[in-house]
This record gives sequence, C-alpha cells and structure tokens, in this order.
Amino acid sequence: MNAANTQCRLAARPIELPKATDWIIVEEPKPVAAEGEFVVKVDYLSIDPAMRTWMNAGRSYVPPVGIGEVMRALGTGHVVESRHPGFAVGDQVSGMFGVQRYALSEGAEVKIIDTGLAPAAVHLAALGISGLTAYFGLLDVGRPEPGQTVLVSGAAGSVGSVVGQIARIKGCRAVGVAGGEQKCRWLVEDVGFDAAIDYKRADLRAELKTHAPDGVDVFFDNVGGATLEAALNRLAGGARIVLCGAVSQYNDAPRGPANYMQLLVARASMTGFVIFDYANRYPEGVAQLAKWLSTGELRSHEQIEHGGIGDFPDTLLKLFRGENTGKLILALE
Amino acid sequence: MNAANTQCRLAARPIELPKATDWIIVEEPKPVAAEGEFVVKVDYLSIDPAMRTWMNAGRSYVPPVGIGEVMRALGTGHVVESRHPGFAVGDQVSGMFGVQRYALSEGAEVKIIDTGLAPAAVHLAALGISGLTAYFGLLDVGRPEPGQTVLVSGAAGSVGSVVGQIARIKGCRAVGVAGGEQKCRWLVEDVGFDAAIDYKRADLRAELKTHAPDGVDVFFDNVGGATLEAALNRLAGGARIVLCGAVSQYNDAPRGPANYMQLLVARASMTGFVIFDYANRYPEGVAQLAKWLSTGELRSHEQIEHGGIGDFPDTLLKLFRGENTGKLILALE
Repeated sequence: MNAANTQCRLAARPIELPKATDWIIVEEPKPVAAEGEFVVKVDYLSIDPAMRTWMNAGRSYVPPVGIGEVMRALGTGHVVESRHPGFAVGDQVSGMFGVQRYALSEGAEVKIIDTGLAPAAVHLAALGISGLTAYFGLLDVGRPEPGQTVLVSGAAGSVGSVVGQIARIKGCRAVGVAGGEQKCRWLVEDVGFDAAIDYKRADLRAELKTHAPDGVDVFFDNVGGATLEAALNRLAGGARIVLCGAVSQYNDAPRGPANYMQLLVARASMTGFVIFDYANRYPEGVAQLAKWLSTGELRSHEQIEHGGIGDFPDTLLKLFRGENTGKLILALE
Repeated sequence: MNAANTQCRLAARPIELPKATDWIIVEEPKPVAAEGEFVVKVDYLSIDPAMRTWMNAGRSYVPPVGIGEVMRALGTGHVVESRHPGFAVGDQVSGMFGVQRYALSEGAEVKIIDTGLAPAAVHLAALGISGLTAYFGLLDVGRPEPGQTVLVSGAAGSVGSVVGQIARIKGCRAVGVAGGEQKCRWLVEDVGFDAAIDYKRADLRAELKTHAPDGVDVFFDNVGGATLEAALNRLAGGARIVLCGAVSQYNDAPRGPANYMQLLVARASMTGFVIFDYANRYPEGVAQLAKWLSTGELRSHEQIEHGGIGDFPDTLLKLFRGENTGKLILALE
C-alpha cells in the first residue's frame, strides 16, 4: 500500500511575512516512477531567505512559485524507487525536490552526494549552495586581498558564517553583523570572526569605525536596509559590495540605500550576484570547500529542526525572526 | 591703478537650492604675483552640477568649500602678470580659478590650452572635464560593446550630450533622458541620439520598453531618483551602471533606489566614478576627443551666458531648473 505524499503548496501571495493562510498542506498519493524517472524520499529541507522572494509575483532571477504549486525547496533525500539508469535505490541525492515528502524526478539538477565525505545536512550547508554562495560571491565578486577588511551582514546565517571563515582563510579581517549578543559571541568564539556587531543594540556606525578602522574593503550583504547604509558610509576606496540578499527588505515596502552616492565618494561598486550562474564551476567550489572542511580550516554550522511537512511554514518564519545560527534545516520525521 | 577683484564667496551652507543669502559678493584688490606666481584674468566659468555638492559639509570626493571662501569653480582665462617660468602673459589657461575675476596661481593643476585647436569655451566643454568625464566614465566604467544600448540621464547636459555621441561612435544605440520636448528634439535632431525620453511627460518605464527593447546594457546616470529606478527595472543581464552624479538628489533629502535589488536580478553592477582619478590619462582622452572633434564625429555644445561675477548665483540655478542644453558657461564681461 502506498504511503501518502504530504505537500506544502502556496495558497496565496503573502504581503509581508507569510501567514498560515498563505499555505495549504495537502496529501497526494506517493508518486510512481515511469521509465526514466525515480522517486526520492526527502530527508532534509533547506530553509532559505530566498524562499520569500520566490513567493512574489514578478520579475526575479527565477520564476515565482505559482499559486497552488508545491513550494520550491532544495533538499536531500534517498532514492526509494528508480527506473532511471543514473540513480539507484538507496542513492543519497540533493536537488530542488520541493516542500514534500516524496519527489518524482527525471534527474535534472539532481546530484548524488557522498555522505562518506560529510553528513547529508552538510551538503545543504557548507558543502551545498550556501557554501558555494559564500565561496564564489566572496572570492569572485568581492575579490578580497590579504590584510583587507571583509564585512558580512547576516553573519550568523548559513552563507554569512561561511563567508567569514573564508575571509579568514584568505588572510582578511572578518567582521560580522548579526542580531543579538548570543549570536555575536558565537561568531567570534565558535566561528572565528575577528569581531561581531549586534545591530539590535549597537550604534552601527560607531562600531564600524571601531572594528573597520581603515574602512570596509568588501561588504558581503545579505540584509540591506540600515546595515547597508552604515556600510556605505564606511567604505574604503575601491571597495566592492557583493549583493547576495536583502532579508530586511523581503517583507516590507523595500527601501533603497539613501546614501548610495557614497559609491561615488569611495569609487566603489555594488554588484548583484546569483549563485546559479556559477553552476559549471560548482565542482571547483565543492572540492575546495571539502578540502577546507577536511583540514578543519572550515566548519559547517547547521541548526536542524525536526518536524513534518506541516512544520515548514513555522520553520521558515524562524529565518525572518532571526532565530537561526548557521544553516537552518528541517529534518523530516 | 589696480582693478578690483570681484569674488563670489560662500556665506552659508544651503539646505536645498542655494538662496541669494547663501552667497556674498565682495571686492578685493586685484592680486599681485610674487616670485613663482602668476595672475589670471578669468574669462569663462564652468557651471557644474557638482558645485552643489561642494557646498555641503561632510565627506565627499573633495573637501567642502569653507564658509567665507571663494566658491570653487573651473574656468579658463588668460595670464595678465607672471613671475612663473612656465606661464607667460597672454597664455590661455584652464584651472580651478574659483568664482572671481582674477586668480592668483602657482601653477598647480593649471593647464595651458590651445585655442587654435578649439575656442576657450570648448576646453570647458567637450575638450574639458565634461568631455573627459563622458569619455572615461562611458568607456572605462561602462565598457559598452557595439550593438549594445547605452542609456544616459541628464542627456542634454554637458556630460550627457557627449556620452551619447561617444556611444554612437562606438556603434551603440544611444537613448537619452531629458526634461522637456524641446531638449529631446534637440538630442535627436542636433546631437544625434537614437531616441530621447522626456521624463516630465512620459511614462518612463513604458518609454524605456519601447526604446530599449533588449534592455539597457550601460546606464550612465547623472540624475538618480525616479530615472535610476526606471533604469534598474530595465537592465539587461550583466548591465553596468555608471554613477556619475545625482542632480535630482543634491537639493532634497536623498532617496535611495527602492528597487536596487534589480542589480541582483540582472547580475548587474553600479560603480561610482570620479573623473579626477583619471588625471594621468587626461592627455589620452583629450587627444581622442580632439580627433573626433576634428573629424566632425563629435560636436561640442555650449550654452554661454554673459554676465559678471554677481550673476553666478542665478546662472548656477539654471542647472537645477533644467534651463541648459549642453555645457553651461558664464562668460565674464
């Protein structure tokens, strides 16, 4: 007898933070593989700030999730049925499986992961898109040089915590911005940042002056808003701002940085960056990240919540309430 | 008997547009050259949007003009007295002479100009800082490729009108944004833009769709505000925004582009640019601009107002009221 396939589908486009009524949890029959297909039982769901943007209508870097469609999500799982030559039952895989218990796939963008190298959850964190985003965003777009100061917002998040570590590996000073004293202590004591600024308490501008006395050479921005404005006022000459996200902006009427002309004062650049453009270089990134993990220079930090598909909406909100340190993952029971 | 040296000095920092009371017109004795100095009688004053930023306190790319100081201005003139080995009476020169009838100089940043090559006013326009700003900003920062679309705001201004012409020379489609039907007609019929959009009348977003059907590859921004936001919504993949100025923002509470995350959607960059950084490459720029002027591929457009030092405040306001086409110059009577 087939198990049910629980799914979380988008019911309505949220205005600010998604409400319970923006989702609908449905049960469908577990899918059956046709020739060339396989079925994945999803084990871990990657919970990402970008999910909020996928829920909006309109132009973005990927099409919006349609009303009534299964919510888009990256995940890992294992193959439970296969009529595909490239995937066998028992294979551990990662891919855009969506917020559902079972996913049917033809193999597009699905990758077999080596859980001998690192546990499956790490393949969603430092060895996954988060790690790759940090790697290519910082090194290719930010281009830090040894001795320079790298500022990271959302530093306690999945991408930010890796950006800071890579900055240190490359001989830079890593300064993080995060919400709350506990996260800031974690960043310095556990993750290895040189300094961390609590944006909820601190005078950002004054703290930046203290912790980036020669200015900010690279600002890796996951947040936008007041943090971006404070960073703009502290740019070193020729600084590079890597626009990776704007989590402060996803749920409000967006607000541009009023002092964007500091880019002119500092002869600086602000460049938008989408990790999917680097798909053909993922192997290079994964190899380097895996090497750093193996030497202990890099550590992967995950916050794993346990629950069912029905717990996805609440877990997603944790991101926007700042209730995560490291990569937020929903482990399906 | 010495003539008087009429000067326009900054009396107060303006809040928005400078008022009459923000200036003071004074008469001092005509300066006398000591050893190593020379005296210039100023003939033409360059009237520039950046002047408004020089009047503000606080961090910018040059120090602010101090209260009580002669207002900073670029100009051309002729040497009337010299005890400097590099400058002889009668030499035509350009430099930061300030808003005054006579300037005393030790020669720093002063250039002898060849009025046989082009009239003195052209050395403040297409052959001067305006032309050089267009040249290096477009080609070095914007990096347009043949067949691409170059959008220019403030297109009827001294820099914008040259940007459009260089874009055409480089095989690009040149689209200008300017205020008023007359300026737009001038841009297309006289300056040679492919299209011009009147931001005062048009639905900017709709017009951009019409005139940049494949998106904007390079946006040379002199204006900021709503024009920058409209351009951000129309960027082609990998687009470059050259931040040259923000004339819409100099006199108001500045407002950032609310949709700056379109830089991420388009994988685009926005880079601040200050012409003074290219000082060691001016000869290259002037040589190329002079060549294009001589072949007729490039034309210099000046709007010359005649008056005295006391007419400077009103002439400056013409810029912010959009009452100029091409380079605004005050010819001193």
